[in-house]
Amino acid sequence: MSKILYGKEVVASIEDELKSEVNALKNMGITPKLAVLRVGENPGDIAYENAALKKAETLGAEVKKFTLPGEATEDKVIAAVEEINNDDSIHGALILRPFPKGMDEEKIRNLLNKDKDLDAITDEASALVFTGKARNYPCTARACLEILKYNKIPVSGKVVLVIGRSLVIGKPVSMLLQRENATVIMAHSKTDSRQMKGLSDLADIVVVATGRPGTFTRELAHEGQTIIDVGMNRNSEGKLVGDVDFEGVSKVVDAITPVPGGVGSVTTAVLFKQLVEAARKVAGLSE
Amino acid sequence: MSKILYGKEVVASIEDELKSEVNALKNMGITPKLAVLRVGENPGDIAYENAALKKAETLGAEVKKFTLPGEATEDKVIAAVEEINNDDSIHGALILRPFPKGMDEEKIRNLLNKDKDLDAITDEASALVFTGKARNYPCTARACLEILKYNKIPVSGKVVLVIGRSLVIGKPVSMLLQRENATVIMAHSKTDSRQMKGLSDLADIVVVATGRPGTFTRELAHEGQTIIDVGMNRNSEGKLVGDVDFEGVSKVVDAITPVPGGVGSVTTAVLFKQLVEAARKVAGLSE
Repeated sequence: MSKILYGKEVVASIEDELKSEVNALKNMGITPKLAVLRVGENPGDIAYENAALKKAETLGAEVKKFTLPGEATEDKVIAAVEEINNDDSIHGALILRPFPKGMDEEKIRNLLNKDKDLDAITDEASALVFTGKARNYPCTARACLEILKYNKIPVSGKVVLVIGRSLVIGKPVSMLLQRENATVIMAHSKTDSRQMKGLSDLADIVVVATGRPGTFTRELAHEGQTIIDVGMNRNSEGKLVGDVDFEGVSKVVDAITPVPGGVGSVTTAVLFKQLVEAARKVAGLSE
Repeated sequence: MSKILYGKEVVASIEDELKSEVNALKNMGITPKLAVLRVGENPGDIAYENAALKKAETLGAEVKKFTLPGEATEDKVIAAVEEINNDDSIHGALILRPFPKGMDEEKIRNLLNKDKDLDAITDEASALVFTGKARNYPCTARACLEILKYNKIPVSGKVVLVIGRSLVIGKPVSMLLQRENATVIMAHSKTDSRQMKGLSDLADIVVVATGRPGTFTRELAHEGQTIIDVGMNRNSEGKLVGDVDFEGVSKVVDAITPVPGGVGSVTTAVLFKQLVEAARKVAGLSE
């Protein structure tokens, strides 16, 4: 039976560090402040917003909500982004997407000030993720790394198989792992399924982020492997499941993240880690 | 003995297509025009510039040279980039780098108009390479793909091992190959050398771009493999050699590019391919 890599332990460790950093900032008269921009009433957006509010309270940070109705005009959304950019007391922003249909999302997200772009949604941030010079990464991508680091699972010089090539997770986590000197195999839906076993055989770590339950099964797994499951799907019985066949795979590998309670639970902590880093930069406490 | 993938055949095929496209543009009163900006007298820069001039003549395109002395001020270089941006008769630019020491290269290259950025040197271009929406790729990266396409070597669903993670070749060619639905293994100097054989065993194609002769040897190669050698090094006898041990590897694999006469010889043709595409866009002949 493999070790279960619970998110809560990673979160507790990140929060411990953040609390003392927030206190140090407050002693300088600075309270890290997150802007959350939400357009419409998507339940997933509201859940993430509520998680952020709760986490802010735990850490002693502030949240300023920018909430617009689903039928708001594009101009109103742009005005909100500009207010976020111009408010010096705001250190970073979470812009919940996708926006309601008909809005020029590409234009709006690229208006966000790069120093406040905590989830790396601007093209400028994407370029830095690609070139390896980014400060902020999409929070879920960085959450994968935080779990590995907390559990002292080395990445440098190791082979990591990443399954999935989305812009929010597959691509950025590949670049982040490469920056940490991992040899990264970028697999995806067009990867020859007959090759997957051979690719996994070489991999010390597998990050699965396809959005399809059962992407990674026991037959693909081997002893010694660490599995990071980014998936969050609801199965036919209404139960939350990942992209990995947890029951089968956990019998074989060394370590595996659960769903729920794994990667997803670390994402909000990473958001605040990147917020506090932004505030520390403003305060001159880091470069 | 493997098939030698000579660049000249690929170049001839690209040029055939470009000549008819240039003629069609000229019939509309448009001559594709390349700007070449060179600061100082670096022999490599001058060689690339001369190759561009010669190729332009072959194709019926024009070149406008912007040549500044090595001791030029940063303002003069910026003025040249702005002239390139503002001259509507110029469809694309080759900016030879690195610039002489002391210049803010990051600032200067990011001033180039994105539609004229043929070698994808701006951050905006990097972001598009990363997201998979790029029109222009660094020319050497695209040259690798052109060689594979011309020789009808399939990429989609195949495993490609890319050795080297530079911004000019390793990273962009990895993203370009992924966009073409290859499964890409991104290896580099920190890859565990004991793993390299296993990684290569899975690879249908290997792109070697480390700048170190002997990076890829006969022991790593296998029958059926295609090898793209991006290296261009001068050995102790003053002879040009690639990153691949050509003599040994060519005895084993199916196909291999030579050095010289391989990837490097295709780069200038790709530059003009991207120039003509930019001119066609201006002319409304492509999106």
